[in-house]
Amino acid sequence: MTDTTLNSPQLPAFAGRHIGPSDDDIVEMLATIGRSSIDDLTHTAIPAAIRATSTMSITAADSESAVVAELRTLAARNQVLTSMIGLGYYGTITPAVIQRNVLENPAWYTAYTPYQPEISQGRLEALLNFQTVVSDLTGLTTAGASLLDEATAAAEAMTLMRRSSKAAADAVLLVDEAVFPQTLAVMRTRALPLGIEIVVTDLSDVTSGEELEVAAGGRAVFGVLVQYPDLHGRLRDHRALADAAHGSGALVTAAADLMALTLATAPGEWGADIAIGTTQRFGVPMAFGGPHAGYMSVRQGLERTLPGRLVGVSVDATGAPAYRLALQTREQHIRREKATSNICTAQVLLAVMASMYAVYHGPRGLRAIALNIHAHATSLANALRAGGVDVEEHDRFDTLSVKVPGRAAEVTEAALAEGVNVWPAGDDTVLVSVDETTTLADLEKVARAFGADAPSKVQVAEPAWGEALRRTSEYLTHPVFSSHHSETAMLRYLRRLSDRDFALDRGMIPLGSCTMKLNATTEMLAITWPEFAHLHPFAPLDQTVGIRTLVDQLEQWLCDITGYDAVSLQPNAGSQGEFAGLLAIAAYHRSRGDAERNVCLIPASAHGTNAASAVMAGMKVVVVKTDVITGNVDMDDLKAKVEEHRDDLAAIMVTYPSTHGVFEDTISDLCAMVHDAGGQVYVDGANLNAMVGLAQPGRFGADVSHLNLHKTFCIPHGGGGPGVGPVACREHLAPFLPNHPLDVEAGPETGVGPISAAPYGSAGILPISWAYVRLMGAAGLRRATEVAVLNANYVAARLRDHYPVLYSGEGGLVAHECILDVRPLTKDTGVTVDDIAKRLIDYGFHAPTMSFPVAGTLMVEPTESEDKVELDRFCDAMIAIRGEITEAGASGNAATSVLRGAPHTAVSLAGEWDVAYSRQEAAFPKGVDPLAKYWPPVRRIDGAYGDRHLVCSCPPPEAFED
Amino acid sequence: MTDTTLNSPQLPAFAGRHIGPSDDDIVEMLATIGRSSIDDLTHTAIPAAIRATSTMSITAADSESAVVAELRTLAARNQVLTSMIGLGYYGTITPAVIQRNVLENPAWYTAYTPYQPEISQGRLEALLNFQTVVSDLTGLTTAGASLLDEATAAAEAMTLMRRSSKAAADAVLLVDEAVFPQTLAVMRTRALPLGIEIVVTDLSDVTSGEELEVAAGGRAVFGVLVQYPDLHGRLRDHRALADAAHGSGALVTAAADLMALTLATAPGEWGADIAIGTTQRFGVPMAFGGPHAGYMSVRQGLERTLPGRLVGVSVDATGAPAYRLALQTREQHIRREKATSNICTAQVLLAVMASMYAVYHGPRGLRAIALNIHAHATSLANALRAGGVDVEEHDRFDTLSVKVPGRAAEVTEAALAEGVNVWPAGDDTVLVSVDETTTLADLEKVARAFGADAPSKVQVAEPAWGEALRRTSEYLTHPVFSSHHSETAMLRYLRRLSDRDFALDRGMIPLGSCTMKLNATTEMLAITWPEFAHLHPFAPLDQTVGIRTLVDQLEQWLCDITGYDAVSLQPNAGSQGEFAGLLAIAAYHRSRGDAERNVCLIPASAHGTNAASAVMAGMKVVVVKTDVITGNVDMDDLKAKVEEHRDDLAAIMVTYPSTHGVFEDTISDLCAMVHDAGGQVYVDGANLNAMVGLAQPGRFGADVSHLNLHKTFCIPHGGGGPGVGPVACREHLAPFLPNHPLDVEAGPETGVGPISAAPYGSAGILPISWAYVRLMGAAGLRRATEVAVLNANYVAARLRDHYPVLYSGEGGLVAHECILDVRPLTKDTGVTVDDIAKRLIDYGFHAPTMSFPVAGTLMVEPTESEDKVELDRFCDAMIAIRGEITEAGASGNAATSVLRGAPHTAVSLAGEWDVAYSRQEAAFPKGVDPLAKYWPPVRRIDGAYGDRHLVCSCPPPEAFED
Repeated sequence: MTDTTLNSPQLPAFAGRHIGPSDDDIVEMLATIGRSSIDDLTHTAIPAAIRATSTMSITAADSESAVVAELRTLAARNQVLTSMIGLGYYGTITPAVIQRNVLENPAWYTAYTPYQPEISQGRLEALLNFQTVVSDLTGLTTAGASLLDEATAAAEAMTLMRRSSKAAADAVLLVDEAVFPQTLAVMRTRALPLGIEIVVTDLSDVTSGEELEVAAGGRAVFGVLVQYPDLHGRLRDHRALADAAHGSGALVTAAADLMALTLATAPGEWGADIAIGTTQRFGVPMAFGGPHAGYMSVRQGLERTLPGRLVGVSVDATGAPAYRLALQTREQHIRREKATSNICTAQVLLAVMASMYAVYHGPRGLRAIALNIHAHATSLANALRAGGVDVEEHDRFDTLSVKVPGRAAEVTEAALAEGVNVWPAGDDTVLVSVDETTTLADLEKVARAFGADAPSKVQVAEPAWGEALRRTSEYLTHPVFSSHHSETAMLRYLRRLSDRDFALDRGMIPLGSCTMKLNATTEMLAITWPEFAHLHPFAPLDQTVGIRTLVDQLEQWLCDITGYDAVSLQPNAGSQGEFAGLLAIAAYHRSRGDAERNVCLIPASAHGTNAASAVMAGMKVVVVKTDVITGNVDMDDLKAKVEEHRDDLAAIMVTYPSTHGVFEDTISDLCAMVHDAGGQVYVDGANLNAMVGLAQPGRFGADVSHLNLHKTFCIPHGGGGPGVGPVACREHLAPFLPNHPLDVEAGPETGVGPISAAPYGSAGILPISWAYVRLMGAAGLRRATEVAVLNANYVAARLRDHYPVLYSGEGGLVAHECILDVRPLTKDTGVTVDDIAKRLIDYGFHAPTMSFPVAGTLMVEPTESEDKVELDRFCDAMIAIRGEITEAGASGNAATSVLRGAPHTAVSLAGEWDVAYSRQEAAFPKGVDPLAKYWPPVRRIDGAYGDRHLVCSCPPPEAFED
Repeated sequence: MTDTTLNSPQLPAFAGRHIGPSDDDIVEMLATIGRSSIDDLTHTAIPAAIRATSTMSITAADSESAVVAELRTLAARNQVLTSMIGLGYYGTITPAVIQRNVLENPAWYTAYTPYQPEISQGRLEALLNFQTVVSDLTGLTTAGASLLDEATAAAEAMTLMRRSSKAAADAVLLVDEAVFPQTLAVMRTRALPLGIEIVVTDLSDVTSGEELEVAAGGRAVFGVLVQYPDLHGRLRDHRALADAAHGSGALVTAAADLMALTLATAPGEWGADIAIGTTQRFGVPMAFGGPHAGYMSVRQGLERTLPGRLVGVSVDATGAPAYRLALQTREQHIRREKATSNICTAQVLLAVMASMYAVYHGPRGLRAIALNIHAHATSLANALRAGGVDVEEHDRFDTLSVKVPGRAAEVTEAALAEGVNVWPAGDDTVLVSVDETTTLADLEKVARAFGADAPSKVQVAEPAWGEALRRTSEYLTHPVFSSHHSETAMLRYLRRLSDRDFALDRGMIPLGSCTMKLNATTEMLAITWPEFAHLHPFAPLDQTVGIRTLVDQLEQWLCDITGYDAVSLQPNAGSQGEFAGLLAIAAYHRSRGDAERNVCLIPASAHGTNAASAVMAGMKVVVVKTDVITGNVDMDDLKAKVEEHRDDLAAIMVTYPSTHGVFEDTISDLCAMVHDAGGQVYVDGANLNAMVGLAQPGRFGADVSHLNLHKTFCIPHGGGGPGVGPVACREHLAPFLPNHPLDVEAGPETGVGPISAAPYGSAGILPISWAYVRLMGAAGLRRATEVAVLNANYVAARLRDHYPVLYSGEGGLVAHECILDVRPLTKDTGVTVDDIAKRLIDYGFHAPTMSFPVAGTLMVEPTESEDKVELDRFCDAMIAIRGEITEAGASGNAATSVLRGAPHTAVSLAGEWDVAYSRQEAAFPKGVDPLAKYWPPVRRIDGAYGDRHLVCSCPPPEAFED
């Protein structure tokens, strides 16, 4: 039903729920910015040359319940069998209390990346728990706050080992042949552009430097990677291999299963320098491949080379312990092309779930689960052997490798008939993996499929492994892992943590470039349905028709929206989408015999990830100047650089509308100039929220883009991930999109290989974006863009007199975000962007983006979902803060001002008060509703202190005593 | 899987999640109370005579996921067709944001009744919104905070009219024949014991006092009740009827559909004194009959006679507006047998949902939905008439009465074949009701069933009703109904409100007699599945096999647990269960020719509801003394009273263990004494949590009990409802359990009639208790009881030296709760139980039960779900408060103490501070974790002020300005 009261009649009812301002508000807001209509606004803001001429054809569903019904129909076309495929994806039981109160709770899923640590202490503690789990179980000192998946973690380990090894430049990476196939494939994709050579061989018997050299074909070795337990389920003692590798100057990475590590010797204890893997089976549903939290941990000495995010302990202004992201200086947004990785997104929401699974079960509970898994596997092996079936003899945790010469397909079919998926590894072998959900009845079915009698019972016992493999060290000894085992205690812990954080469920998060818009509940509903959540990514095609249909439709819709011809949904983060897009460009050039084209032009204002991705794709970064006045690409400099690199120009990467929040009217010229020189145009889709329905990058000259479904298409940020970063391109690049060795439908045969572990990346959350697009339809999507532009211009109009709006385009208009220049104020008064950001916390807001793309500025992106009341509340707060800045300037002492003191905690209010301003001014300045007050749990955090004293696992409880 | 680490091996894993203390904790706690084992404890605490000899046979499920799988199997045995049955139950769309963030959010569903208003401001605001919705739409000045359902609301209106009318004692109630059949049936059940005569007749043409008298068969009339719109879908102008009634000294009640009232003249505008009904179709799923929020509103002058809860506006200690329950002095817990009603529970959670539906849609949105419903009904009527079908001619809102002489069953079958349920009203008429979910496709199906062509389209238009029926007055003009129409705004409003409240997700709620235990997430999962949530209570039997099977199993399990022979799940609150139990007793006596047995003995310490229920059941209350020292029933007085009433003794109502929290060892004697005198023994099941698995009332001498599923069996309290109060009895009373006119399976043919509108009462939430019992099994249930007793005794042991424990039994032990005597302290220091209760808020706790069963005391019931850490936190807080009391006593001025100042808000901390204690002492006394601080939104509330200045709808926003 169309709700005529809330929307123009042609808009679906949901548009009135997704979009904040009412029709009446819109009229008022247009008046404030001096435009007569939305069309007047967008026609002025958006250059005619790029304005879309064709309209999108997506029809909106009738209602939210109609979309839910459609999703139920799609879900019914999936078939959830018992999965015993393994290969890194296992059945797991998500404790209901965690599902409801984390995955389905907006306080967790609508939070942003914890860059503002004062309002992120809850999820930072959860991530520190995650790091402690990984560090403890792998026996390595420092773990990061999650990576995208196991395969990309392996690729990151590869480059980490390359950076950290002193081996010769032409040294190779030795990979044991028994690694998961998708892991190897992703490493190959990533190795190629970097010129890294991977040698795959059987490392079982390598015990000396000589044997290592032989295995490497006589080449020097910079790194070794083994799977533990391996593809065949073998649990091997790698001590000698590790010693040999270290003796040869190589580092050793273990791709390790955390569940197995509750029973098996930790990699750090047998000599691994690095451990990587997935935490999926710690309560995160398989979800057709993702999202899950990958992990990496490293031994002492390597912590500063870790890719991705790392949470550490520091102190706040009062000296109290406080968490924040550590060592950010090594990240892509600072180091750009010199960064250790292009990763920006972690998998926070999933890492939180996995960590809470460990908190809820505790060390004894986890061990009991692992023993139970192992007992089931042992029982199955015994039953099969008793039935004359040839089960490979080796120490195992959970996986059986069964020899069935020539009969693998037949056995797999027989298991299928029993309702169980197993994995045919070639013609002669079937792999069967046991997991937390496996029952005796499941074992019976599998035994029948092999023609054996069912095991009569499952006897839980300690593994009968050799001593070297049996874990003796303790883990998860921190009290947090033994304090929350009742559901009541767990529920309250989750509530306490989430109460410390500020997410979209409390108020606006006006982060420029991050598009923190509504994640509607209806969009979130389907992701926890068993039909989507419990699919193995390598389940047979005919069991996954529903999700594949959904993927196809979403790809088509994204083409319709962007004007591109093809989309791959595989990249599970924007950074991976960038990488995939650049790989496509490189492969395209190669296919035309233009392999020498390897220069990538990047404007100075670009997001750091662009440069880091270009380097990963084997390109050479050449920076193009941006105009200091307008923020636009300096067309003269561009012309010169294009001229200079006419023969080796591969691509230009630009963001549109620009990172300065402006529709540059030179974009068409830019595209033409690069094309004329034989280059390809990469448009970063970070700002697509300003274009949907109004302009199509695939039509105004670009060749390829990545999109951020977690920005424009409503996948929640989850406190810092999951992200989804599909790559979209024109027809000529389509043959070079990602594909996948285990899924023929996942990409073109001529593709560049997989760039994520799973064929469709984070497939499990695609129903969110699917639902959003289907709910909005063409008209709703376009309206969302228009109101996003309206909201940004309204904020700019209201704040312009108080803070200069740094860049704008035609008619003084901005696109969907605006940059407030704080530099003159800082110069005059000493008050910094940091002070404003922290002071906004006292007023009940998340800060805008700080110092990007221009140092000393704040970039505000309200999105279409914020209504006028909230926009006004924000503007009023900013104006009030402007008054406080003036006051601080007048007093001549910013250092003692309420701004520098911000944020203020409730505890500080109760204590001694010896500052120049009152408690009332500190905590309840004008405009703050006492009944809606958000209290940060800590005062301003000293980040540098924590980097000097790096602590990245849970501090002892005593640290929090007064 | 049994988790051996957390529980004794024979216990299911879930017991370790439900029960707070670990095995190690239990050992420590037993040491504190000086008992060697759990068995030692319970054998000492529980008299041998009542200890259960047989064990329960309920087997536990393997795991939480196994229970979910079983529930899915049951769900699959229900068939959800399109319901167009109507009769007070309609398809409705629950906005997803409300479902997830109210119904599925523990911050809302685990809250207690808002008796402590300072920690309940969020739900009190939501309830005030509810009252405003009802009051506005019905056009009557004062609405209550919800009743149990439409039929019981009608019965309450009946008694209200009887109380308020000055008509002669033998005056009758005139009920229009076109009321819903279940409404009439429930009124009849309630009228019988009170001696009220109901005359049912056609009131369509009654326009004068004379006609009214004729309609009443020449009798005086105290009240008139009409359905608006009525059973046949007719919308009639009742002005003349109302005038006639008023002229004759009768009051008028309209059973009105709130959705229709968005378009139709409000009952208050045509002269109704009272409106009653259900708010189900405001976004609350049909759920096979309940729970839903019934409503009642009354004209000015009747507000003090309203049954049930009423939220009003008052002020806190600083003069700020604050909400609290108003006019409590008229309720059963104060007035006992003189109360206006026996109702204690409202339907808060559902009332909150319905109110939020109105907040989310706003007046224009609601009107649009109603117009759309009406348009579909009109369209269907036109199509049927065009097809030659005889649709009754009258003004209608949503329901068609279709004449199909002799073919009603046939047409109903034809509709069924199309997937639609309609209602055959006799052989010749079919009723078809349109609702919010009805689509054009549904109309097509119905038209086909009648052999007519489908309507071609639905044209939304103003109703073509006579002027008298068309609503012209405004409604929902308060800003709250026009401020939260985007999902973002709605989400934040829900978060803001819930953040003001203290529920089980924040900490312990140690309310004696209320059993605030864990409501586990797994138990909650199934209630929102469409297969349970979308069933109409009068859907054909073969479509509801799954839920009926679940009901049967739960009844059997409850018999197994209590030792009774039969259970009825129909009563949708404990008070209704009491009433049903007493009715069964009365009917039993009648069946034996003992109709004169009408005295009900009730101990002085009994819950006020007991007395109120006895009166409703037509009994005469005779109070039995309780011993001032032990709190036990005074056996001498009992003996005397039994003797005195040997000829007219109907029953005794006792609570076991006693309301004093003690297992009285005289219970068997008491039962025998009453039985010997020909009376029946009613055991109030409020304290069943202390008996499950240890003692069975059905075996130690009782004849009938009601149970509280929302206490012992984990249905969440929902902030003050839903409750479920099944009645359980021995074989001889079973023929007199409730039944239902529209469901042959719902009770015995010889039953006393329905006492709830729906055959199985609040059937929609029974999966919660079913899951709890199935998860725990016999061993887990027994363990829960043991630990509940352990926890209470642990608290008593820790606090005994600081506060006298008022009553105890054998060995100084209490049952599952303990009473702390504050009276001596009050006498010495002036500090009251109120002061302690409010001070506990500063420490982060909900208060224990205050002044029940003994004035000036606190009754603590920790339940088995609280772990030792939380129990210690509570005991430490109570001991610290004891220190504060001593200090206040020493200073000689309780009035200026931190106790009297409690609770303290954050706002008060920020302002001027001119009291004798510090801010730190006020807000962060020792033991309060600043990172987990709960801030009440208001200071102590002045309840009396609000009763003097009664305001029961939303105050204007200006009221909240400084």
